Amino acid sequence: MFSNISLEHARQILTDHCDTMAGEMVPLNQAVNRVLRKPVYAPYHMPLRAQSAVDGYALGEGPDKIGSSYKLIAELKLDSFPCFGLEYGQAVSVPTGGILPEGTVAVVPGEKTLAHQQQVKILEKIKPGTNIKEAGEDFCRDELLLPSGTKLDYAAVALLAAYDFYQVETVRRPETAVVCLAENIICQEMKLQNGQMRDSNGPMLSALIDRDGGVVSSVIYGGITGRDKMISQLHSMMNQLDVAVFTGGTFENGENNMDAIMHALEARILYQSVELQPGSHTGAALKGNCLLFWLSGNPSACAVNYHLFVYPAIKRLLGQQTEYQRINACCVNGFAKKSNSRRMVRGRLWWTGKGWNVEVLPGQKPSMLRSLLYCNAFIDLPAGTPPIEAGQEVDVLVFPVGNVL
Amino acid sequence: MFSNISLEHARQILTDHCDTMAGEMVPLNQAVNRVLRKPVYAPYHMPLRAQSAVDGYALGEGPDKIGSSYKLIAELKLDSFPCFGLEYGQAVSVPTGGILPEGTVAVVPGEKTLAHQQQVKILEKIKPGTNIKEAGEDFCRDELLLPSGTKLDYAAVALLAAYDFYQVETVRRPETAVVCLAENIICQEMKLQNGQMRDSNGPMLSALIDRDGGVVSSVIYGGITGRDKMISQLHSMMNQLDVAVFTGGTFENGENNMDAIMHALEARILYQSVELQPGSHTGAALKGNCLLFWLSGNPSACAVNYHLFVYPAIKRLLGQQTEYQRINACCVNGFAKKSNSRRMVRGRLWWTGKGWNVEVLPGQKPSMLRSLLYCNAFIDLPAGTPPIEAGQEVDVLVFPVGNVL
Repeated sequence: MFSNISLEHARQILTDHCDTMAGEMVPLNQAVNRVLRKPVYAPYHMPLRAQSAVDGYALGEGPDKIGSSYKLIAELKLDSFPCFGLEYGQAVSVPTGGILPEGTVAVVPGEKTLAHQQQVKILEKIKPGTNIKEAGEDFCRDELLLPSGTKLDYAAVALLAAYDFYQVETVRRPETAVVCLAENIICQEMKLQNGQMRDSNGPMLSALIDRDGGVVSSVIYGGITGRDKMISQLHSMMNQLDVAVFTGGTFENGENNMDAIMHALEARILYQSVELQPGSHTGAALKGNCLLFWLSGNPSACAVNYHLFVYPAIKRLLGQQTEYQRINACCVNGFAKKSNSRRMVRGRLWWTGKGWNVEVLPGQKPSMLRSLLYCNAFIDLPAGTPPIEAGQEVDVLVFPVGNVL
Repeated sequence: MFSNISLEHARQILTDHCDTMAGEMVPLNQAVNRVLRKPVYAPYHMPLRAQSAVDGYALGEGPDKIGSSYKLIAELKLDSFPCFGLEYGQAVSVPTGGILPEGTVAVVPGEKTLAHQQQVKILEKIKPGTNIKEAGEDFCRDELLLPSGTKLDYAAVALLAAYDFYQVETVRRPETAVVCLAENIICQEMKLQNGQMRDSNGPMLSALIDRDGGVVSSVIYGGITGRDKMISQLHSMMNQLDVAVFTGGTFENGENNMDAIMHALEARILYQSVELQPGSHTGAALKGNCLLFWLSGNPSACAVNYHLFVYPAIKRLLGQQTEYQRINACCVNGFAKKSNSRRMVRGRLWWTGKGWNVEVLPGQKPSMLRSLLYCNAFIDLPAGTPPIEAGQEVDVLVFPVGNVL
């Protein structure tokens, strides 16, 4: 077990204990946003055979002059499968997407012809290859279509549909439990009593885990049910869990409660206490294949801990890249505090048209929620950083979740 | 009805015919990614009353010197509601999050005290205000928490949960039908015959509409069921629909099929034919409150049409901003064709650490799917643009869906 370690060291320990999870077949119509477990290769050329790109006439070799005529030998439909070839001076009519006969040199659009009694007169000069979709012009047989780790977006799903995949092997979604340990934090369904607060970390973590590809199978209020009941509940579900995330009440009266809880769960602590502000009282453990994380109970610190530790672990379980992009940005409003230990300041990053600006969001106390609104980046201040002045350059970690541009 | 108009004109027409839709109450645990219909204001201060930020002792006015002692007059618990005030030299023990009595000057952490027989000795000097979470320090009563049009992310949901909202008014999700008109494009469930192709636009549009906040209530294969059946099907559902998106078979044999279909649906055509490559044969109509769009059947052109017309309409129906960010980027590989009309080239944009690069993706024919893979931006080439050389600056429209950084 490592204690009081650097962020990078903790991340490395997690990396060493996260492997891509097993796959499961899902129907294509439920596969959007899922992650491919294995690469997908093209089973055949697309298009499979040369097709017409327009409604018109497929021409064989011929005089190829304006005003020259071809002999119309057949009318092809969309469901025609021509077994003959075009010879010199021959033409067939063909619809858009229709399969072209062997020997087609070009397809001339209907509106650029005059057809009369089995003769097609060409009104415009047409270059060889025009309006032909060659076999394999979009994708070739056996080529890599989508690498493993691809998150299936609209384009990937369209491609798989075009190739007639009716199901696809995706990585299982990590089954996750969220465990709230604080004794005075109660869930939405219970009546608030004096001194109690409504839980916000449970809904926050559920939204984050769902956003990042996990599935929250249960939210446990361990501070209310009592520790013994919580431990037996977790014991009974541990085989089904890939991840458990504890928050609140992890550190009380100067004592780390997680030692005892991890001991009771027979989990091996990987690290605890990271040189980080906010949220230094964080850690991770392993029980079988389940990764257990504990995060600060303070909402902003909880979100910082989640993004730095749980997010990359979930991405690795899904077989995806985990690195945040780092960007140098101009801090428009500064930050008055010295940072004795490494600090993650919640910020809003934007592109000005000329460069990157970042604003230190209001409400930077770990206990406040405010700095999470509009937050799309962390300003990463190394230990010993003096106060930041307005206009100073800072190093920013960008969240890859699409609210920057 | 406008014909052969500019992209901006078509967008303006759509803007004029899109209003934010009605709201519906949804339980908070189903509200993630939904859009707020009305602004939400803080019903009370957060925290409601001054609280302790640590486990320790709340001190009244006093000698405030290292080694000075305070008289311990009570032990507060998390559920205590102190109705008394602290007088000179008095202290109470208090847990993290416990409500502080009136007259509290600061809270000293337990580990910085020596408590003995109702006396608390201070071992470290402590500044007034230390470890006190003031009432309203995070949010003040009546302040705007979240404006209407906010897409509820993890932070917004956490804030609403903390304020004990158990439901929230969100904009209805636009009910959408996808209609495939091509006669040879068949859905996943049917057996492929000669000349038929598996539908990819249906799955593509369904994924896009779902991604952007709409809900696809039906996918209709009008080319297979026949036009009459399709029309009567659409007629019967028109009152429930907010959007219908037609694709494929909208333009055949040089004729626009949509005139007849819109006539049969008694819909008023708003515009058709836009100066745009790919996907000029696109248009929109209005029937009651339902917006009807027709998009190219070529997959890349269909995606271009969707992003330029349907996407902003859905966003407006949801009460959200619709403008794409424009970025100037260096085109790393160039584009060999002259653009006679305005052209949207599918590209992949990335930040190099010093500036923006964009790559013209391979497979730019409208009939190909390939250029949609890894596409996160359109290179916007005005009519008359000569071929683009590698290294040239281009104007790029960025998709706000999170795959740029």
